This record gives sequence, structure tokens and C-alpha cells, in this order.
Amino acid sequence: MTTLLRNIGELVTNDPSRGDRYGIVSNAAIEFDEGVVLWAGTDSEARERPEYDRGIDCEGRAVIPGFVDSHTHLVFAGDRSHEFEARMAGTAYSAGGIATTVSATRAASDDQLRALLAERVTEARAQGTTTIEIKTGYGLTVEHEERLARIAREFTDHVTFLGAHVVPAEFVGREDEYVELVEGPMLDAVAPKVSAVDVFCEDGAFTVDQCRRILQAARARGLRTHIHAAQLGTSDSVRMALEKGVASVDHGTYLTDDDVAALAGSDAVLTLLPGADFSTRQPYPDARRLLDAGVTVALATNCNPGSSFTQSMAFCIAIAVREMGMTPREALWSATMGGALSLGDTRIGKLAVGSRAHLVELDAPNHIHLAYRPGMNLVRTVWA
Amino acid sequence: MTTLLRNIGELVTNDPSRGDRYGIVSNAAIEFDEGVVLWAGTDSEARERPEYDRGIDCEGRAVIPGFVDSHTHLVFAGDRSHEFEARMAGTAYSAGGIATTVSATRAASDDQLRALLAERVTEARAQGTTTIEIKTGYGLTVEHEERLARIAREFTDHVTFLGAHVVPAEFVGREDEYVELVEGPMLDAVAPKVSAVDVFCEDGAFTVDQCRRILQAARARGLRTHIHAAQLGTSDSVRMALEKGVASVDHGTYLTDDDVAALAGSDAVLTLLPGADFSTRQPYPDARRLLDAGVTVALATNCNPGSSFTQSMAFCIAIAVREMGMTPREALWSATMGGALSLGDTRIGKLAVGSRAHLVELDAPNHIHLAYRPGMNLVRTVWA
Repeated sequence: MTTLLRNIGELVTNDPSRGDRYGIVSNAAIEFDEGVVLWAGTDSEARERPEYDRGIDCEGRAVIPGFVDSHTHLVFAGDRSHEFEARMAGTAYSAGGIATTVSATRAASDDQLRALLAERVTEARAQGTTTIEIKTGYGLTVEHEERLARIAREFTDHVTFLGAHVVPAEFVGREDEYVELVEGPMLDAVAPKVSAVDVFCEDGAFTVDQCRRILQAARARGLRTHIHAAQLGTSDSVRMALEKGVASVDHGTYLTDDDVAALAGSDAVLTLLPGADFSTRQPYPDARRLLDAGVTVALATNCNPGSSFTQSMAFCIAIAVREMGMTPREALWSATMGGALSLGDTRIGKLAVGSRAHLVELDAPNHIHLAYRPGMNLVRTVWA
Repeated sequence: MTTLLRNIGELVTNDPSRGDRYGIVSNAAIEFDEGVVLWAGTDSEARERPEYDRGIDCEGRAVIPGFVDSHTHLVFAGDRSHEFEARMAGTAYSAGGIATTVSATRAASDDQLRALLAERVTEARAQGTTTIEIKTGYGLTVEHEERLARIAREFTDHVTFLGAHVVPAEFVGREDEYVELVEGPMLDAVAPKVSAVDVFCEDGAFTVDQCRRILQAARARGLRTHIHAAQLGTSDSVRMALEKGVASVDHGTYLTDDDVAALAGSDAVLTLLPGADFSTRQPYPDARRLLDAGVTVALATNCNPGSSFTQSMAFCIAIAVREMGMTPREALWSATMGGALSLGDTRIGKLAVGSRAHLVELDAPNHIHLAYRPGMNLVRTVWA
């Protein structure tokens, strides 16, 4: 069945063949079937396309590509709201951070995790997210990481193995042994379920050398790679990761000028995670500096129970515009095409002919409203 | 018909008879009829209350008082998203600010304004707002201010006359003549529809002397009064307003120590408007300083098309916690009881026996999630 959306106030295509990278068409129309965009153009051109099954009048509202949330830790159990409350009050809180979630997640049944994940994916979808990446990383044993990958795989094609999230309590003092487990048996177990491998390279997590080993093991299997880096301080992590050909460097709060130049000269995406900076009171990275240097920037929610419990890509856009120096159109591009580039899927993040028909109609006349109306969910209809 | 909500994970009552001003009950229950809270207590106590018509299991979710949004400019027409985009990019934008909205609002028919307002009130309600104040201020003639008050009155009992919003173009150079119009014929025309009068006391709007005259005229009619003050700089406005007995001072970004002491020694509420600070990149007021000095603080959205186009009280809570030094419970109190005190309605903002039955069930186990899950609408059910 083909659908023609007519009378679109503003259609954001991200199709560079329309003049610039945003490819915005005013007074637009777009036609698609269940899977694929068939045609896009102006509303007056659409009058010459009579052969569609269903016509919908968008009454001047905007249509954008569905959001691509390329960085989430969505499969977990337990509640850490009191840790958040203590952090915001600046008081000590003795709970164990990620380890708290690892314990709760290990203790949950498959069905409990499946129900929690289903609810969170539904919430994300209602906020306009049509592609979502989900990381493991709250299992940290062969059995539990495999289980998280398997359950996540029921909800998305984009599952990422993050065995190197934190060193589990039982391996403290034997970190290299844990790394051997991650790059060996754990990777063996999860490989059939995942499309990528991520590592958390930071003081208190994994060293640059440990991360290099894991990224090498992942590449040897033909998996895409990502890195959490430069969130808490500068290090050699970004340079190492680019040498190893990562698809994305995520966080990037503390980047040297050399890091920025190296990112700009690479095929890698720098993924900004405004929700995490918001909920941890970290300084906001300067997206303007990155964009002006030619770095490809993605925006993602980093949805997780410790540092960023939101699935709202619109909220991330609003923060990126308020705090990081992005324009609304840059932020929207990063939340769609930026994520698609990070995930390596060339058929999403845009609405060109042949793209996947992942469309979001907004209760707004243009995309600026995503930042202009903070805290509001403007998503009216999702087609995907 | 009486309803008993059982198995509430956390019930926030704001009832000081329960120990502190927040009156939080864990594992709680609450009974109400269509209008009034009949009883609240623990879930085990509820087992001894068999005489209700309808029982609902909240499955451990939190229940809070409905939000009281005590400061909005909700009745307007027109779109100013491009002005927002330009401001965020730091570029000049030649449109006329409030005057743009005045023109669009005057040009709209009653039915158009009614439809726009109905949509916005519905959005607010879906975000958990059960009481909303609506200001006039985009008419600025006797006829148009009366019209806005009349239409707003169809949606709320809390309509505020804001003829002194900005000097309309036709009175530039004759500001005092406009003030005479506001305090005389315009106030006469709107008085039957409104419960309060507000003035915008700031460079570029109205002087302290002009505002004093209007506040006096309002008090002479027995109307409550409010003031927009100290948003852009310090002045005598706060002291003058407190001398005139205002119910609230709104904004308060630039307060002297004397202002803070005077507020703490008064019955007035200081209303913080995080959405406006967010969307104009103003510095965030220090709520901690106010609370520690003993000032009564309210939070409201200031929903308007120029500086804060959001109806999300939860977003305002999240910003107040991230940026203003409030705890989640302080922010929730300010978003409920604080607003009720500003509006002078003693039966809302709390869930004590005899309070209005305005309740919101959250998709969350406790109120902390309002700040912990930024950008998400956690409202599951609204009773009002």
C-alpha cells in the first residue's frame, strides 16, 4: 500500500541532492509504501501523482526522518533515582553506581527484562525514535552478557556488546583477566547476536591498552566498534580509537585540538550525549567547535539508569541548542543522519528516494519547535 | 462516586500535619470523590475502609498533587520559532518580539483563539497540570484585552489582566497615557472576568512608578496582584511591589540581598520560571539562596511564544534541580503548593482531607523521577 502525505508545512529530508545537507522542502509532499520512500517533492508537484492508495493531509505540520538513537543502555533492571537525588544535592551516596544495576539486572528474569525493555522501547517510539541501538553491559559474565544481547536482539537489529563497561567486583585486582574474558569467551558467546562492540575507556573503567585489545578482537570478527571516551578527562583514547577504525567516539567532553583535528580527518562520528551532561552536571561539550572543524556529530540519549534516564531525542536536541551551540537544524541532522552514520545504516536518517520509510509527523509547523518547545513531546504520528 | 487508590508506592500530600511540609507517605492509599479528598493514609490502613465505589491498584506507582501552573501567557496566535532560532544562533532578528504576537492575536477570530487555547490547555493537562493561570496581554486595547480575558475565562478561574505587558506601538512616546488607559477603562472592562492584575516592570516595559499606579488601581478593586520583576536587572520594583502587597513576584533573576530579605519577611511568593531562563539563555536564579533565606518559592512554566513555549511543569522541575539548586521534593512542592499560594487557592496544591481531588499518577515509583527522567512525560492518569 502506498501513502502520500500532502500539505506538509516543512519536510526535512536530509537529502543533499536538494541543495544542502538538510534538504528542507517547504509546502511539501512525500510518498512511501510500507518499507521505502518512493518520492518526495513539493505539494504542487504531488498533484501530478494520482496513483497512491492512501492520502493524508498534514495540515501544514512538519515531517522529519525518524530519530536514530545510536547510543542507549536500555536493558537493565532496578531503580537508581535516589542516587540521582543525592548527586543533585551534592551529597555522598554510598551505592555502587553501575554495579547496583548489574546486581539488579542479573537478578531479574528474562521475562522481567523483556517487559522492562518493551516498555522503554515503546516510550522511545512514542517520542519519535524509529531506530534504536541497545548496549549490553549490565551482565558482565559470559552467561549474563549473552542473555542481555539475546533479549535486546528481540527489539532491534543494532545490539552492541559492552562487556567492557566496568570491571565487575569479582575481578577487581585482576582487571587483565577480565579483559581476556571479554575479548575471548564473552565475545564468542555474544557475537551471533550483536553487530558492534563498545568499550568504556576512562579512569575507573578500562585503560587505553585494554580497550585497544578489545577493539582489535572485535575488528578481527568484522564487528563495528565504538568507544566511550573523553567524558571525564583527556587521554590517548581518542587517537587510539581512530587508529583502530571506530565508527564512533561517544561523549567527547574533553577533547584536545589534536583530537578534534583527528576526528575531522576520519570517517568516525563524534556522538554527543546531552542527557548525560545534564543529569551529571558535567560541563557541556562545545558542539560548535566540532562542527566548525568539520567533525561529523551525532546526538543520542545515552538512556541508562545512572547518568541519563531519558529516551527523548527532542530533549537532547533542546539541550544541544541551548548549551552546545548547535542550530536546531544541525541538532536534528545529528539526531537522525548523525546516528545513522554511527550505526552504518545508509538507508535511515534521511528521506531520500529509496530510504526506509521512517517518518515522524510533528505537532508543529517546523523542526525548530523541537528546541523551541522544551519538555514537550511534539510527535503526532510515527510511520516505520 | 468515591474512588480509593491503593498500593501507591509514594504519595506526596504536601500536608504538613504528616510531619514536614512534603507529607510523603510510602505504601499509601487515598480516597476521594469527584470533588474532594476524603482520606489519605497507608495502604494497610486502607484495608479498614471498605466503603468506596471504585478501587484502583496503582501497582507501586507514585501519586502527587496536580501541578499548579501559576504563570502562563497562553492565549495568543502566531508563530515565533524563527525568532527563537535567531536568538539561539546569536544573530540579529528584526521582528518585533511581543508586538509580533499582539498583531497576530488581534487578527485572530474568537474561534481561532478558542481553538488554540483549547489545544494548549489540553496539552498542559496531559502533562499533569490541573490548575492553570492565564494572562491577557496580547490585546493591549480595551476591546482586545476584554476579549482575551473573556476567552481565557472559558478555560480557567484564574485569569490575570496584563494590560501592562508592553507599551503598544500606537502609544510609544505617550506611555503615561497608556498607563491611564490600563488603570482606567481597560481595567473596568476586564474586571468582571479576571481575578488578578499583573504588571511587567522592567526597562523597556513599564517603570516602577507606572506599575505602582496600576497595582494600586487593582488593589482598590479587591483584585490580587502580581509583578514581573528583576528579570533583566535590579531595581526598586521588588520593594515597591511588596509594599503594595503583591501575591507574587515573578522571575527574580536579579535580586539584591535586601530584596531576598524583604521577600522572606513577606507573604509574597517568588515565582521562578525556568523555561524562560532556558529559552533566552538568561542566567538561572539561585533558588537555594532563596529557600535558605526562607522565601516561599513557586515554579511555573511562563508558557508564551516569545521566551518560554512549554507547558511542561516536569521540565521546569528538571531545570530547577539541575540549574537552580532545588531538590526534587522542593521543586515539586514549588510546582504545586507554591503555585497554589501564588494564586491564593487554599484547596489546591496539596492532598489533605478537604483538598480538591486533583491527583496525578506517575509512571514512576517516586517523585524524583520528574527530574531524573528529563524530557519524558511521566503522567499516567490525571484525576481532577
